[in-house]
Amino acid sequence: MIIAVHQGPHARLPQALAAAAEKGAELVVTAEMGTTGYHIGAAAVAQRAEAADGPMAVELGALAAEHGVGLLYGYPERDGDAVYNSVQLLSPQGERLANYRKTHLFGDLDRGQFSAGDTPVVQAEFNGVRVGLLICYDVEFPELVRAHALAGTQVLLVPTALMRPYERIADLVVPVRAHESQLYVVYANRCDVEGELTYCGRSTVASPDEVVAKAGDGPQLLFAEVDPAVLARTRAETPYLADRRPSLYRSLTEGPRA
Amino acid sequence: MIIAVHQGPHARLPQALAAAAEKGAELVVTAEMGTTGYHIGAAAVAQRAEAADGPMAVELGALAAEHGVGLLYGYPERDGDAVYNSVQLLSPQGERLANYRKTHLFGDLDRGQFSAGDTPVVQAEFNGVRVGLLICYDVEFPELVRAHALAGTQVLLVPTALMRPYERIADLVVPVRAHESQLYVVYANRCDVEGELTYCGRSTVASPDEVVAKAGDGPQLLFAEVDPAVLARTRAETPYLADRRPSLYRSLTEGPRA
Repeated sequence: MIIAVHQGPHARLPQALAAAAEKGAELVVTAEMGTTGYHIGAAAVAQRAEAADGPMAVELGALAAEHGVGLLYGYPERDGDAVYNSVQLLSPQGERLANYRKTHLFGDLDRGQFSAGDTPVVQAEFNGVRVGLLICYDVEFPELVRAHALAGTQVLLVPTALMRPYERIADLVVPVRAHESQLYVVYANRCDVEGELTYCGRSTVASPDEVVAKAGDGPQLLFAEVDPAVLARTRAETPYLADRRPSLYRSLTEGPRA
Repeated sequence: MIIAVHQGPHARLPQALAAAAEKGAELVVTAEMGTTGYHIGAAAVAQRAEAADGPMAVELGALAAEHGVGLLYGYPERDGDAVYNSVQLLSPQGERLANYRKTHLFGDLDRGQFSAGDTPVVQAEFNGVRVGLLICYDVEFPELVRAHALAGTQVLLVPTALMRPYERIADLVVPVRAHESQLYVVYANRCDVEGELTYCGRSTVASPDEVVAKAGDGPQLLFAEVDPAVLARTRAETPYLADRRPSLYRSLTEGPRA
């Protein structure tokens, strides 16, 4: 399956979907909170937040269907009084397939704008591949990626808003997540400036073996092929998942120590 | 605290301890099964295995005391009918401080020679620093390193026997372990040939921020300074350990799924 990462402004999404479709991509992945902006303040976030089946889902579903390409997009999700930092996966027909609320909030920026989700593993079948969803800071926790691998995720889609000077997350941590949990990680960043934050681009697609595609620090439509057969091969070569000893990991599910 | 990694043959250990002491190192870390060799066959391993307080501990304890430098060494440990792939930490006075039995066995090579240990976290206080012990393949499992961080390990000492073509463990995985669990990792490899295996050197000392020392692929006495204040700073900057959500990680302690 060919996946495209749209590392660029939301306003260019129609062109990105058209170009992705033309090159045979089945899915376009975009950045965290890419539809509205991320560092826009709690008031703006709350004002623009909408339900998972709200007008944005309808509009973007129509756009996906127009091009016949799936879409993962980030947005502020309203549910009653709560607002979540969410991503939603749409099928090439524009149907809503899965919605994930960020579970690991990053500092005051996230905590000032969002509530935390409580469901760690959200998956969907997408054109015969089991995909999973995480957002930005989530992927820095090996436990969450491992939970996806144990639940059968083959391709982990991770919209992000990674800023300078944290380039090593894209360059080092993301490839190691793919290696240790033996799945693909598609890490889709932005490359613009928002207030005092400069997002560093470097969107990365990593297989368990290698970085298969990597963006620079400017706008780019990044293509990568993901192949489940690669996962079967690497899991046979080094059986990390089978060699785990869950009974030795009990401290990981206990509360923090004093 | 200054730590030295002896990436070289066991026969050169006296010279390494002398040189380490002269340069102010408090501890010398050596490779997995460095005393006897690793890929020597089950019969030879069983024949050379001895108790943790056996003649090797006495001999190496005298050597450590002679130079006034601590020593971590790898050896085959006998306990009744079982033989473990173990490492033992000796104080600068030659006293036995801690003994760890490899919990995650690597393929037929380990399983043909060793039983697996069942204690994931073994620690000791060493000159005011809390050190922890793992061996080779163990460190490739993020769960084990996390368990150490949660238990307060500041410097994780990891004797290894990493062979080609697995250089990316030393180059990528070890630095990310230090980053994500916010401790030092001292990964001490060999650089020789044993049967069909070529050990790739590249011993690595990583802080949460960066690789602080790195060996090439030949014999070397590698020095690195480890500073607990660095850990406090990085944990304040990005509070990974405090931001964990243990209740979301329950699947990690369940048995493998069918």
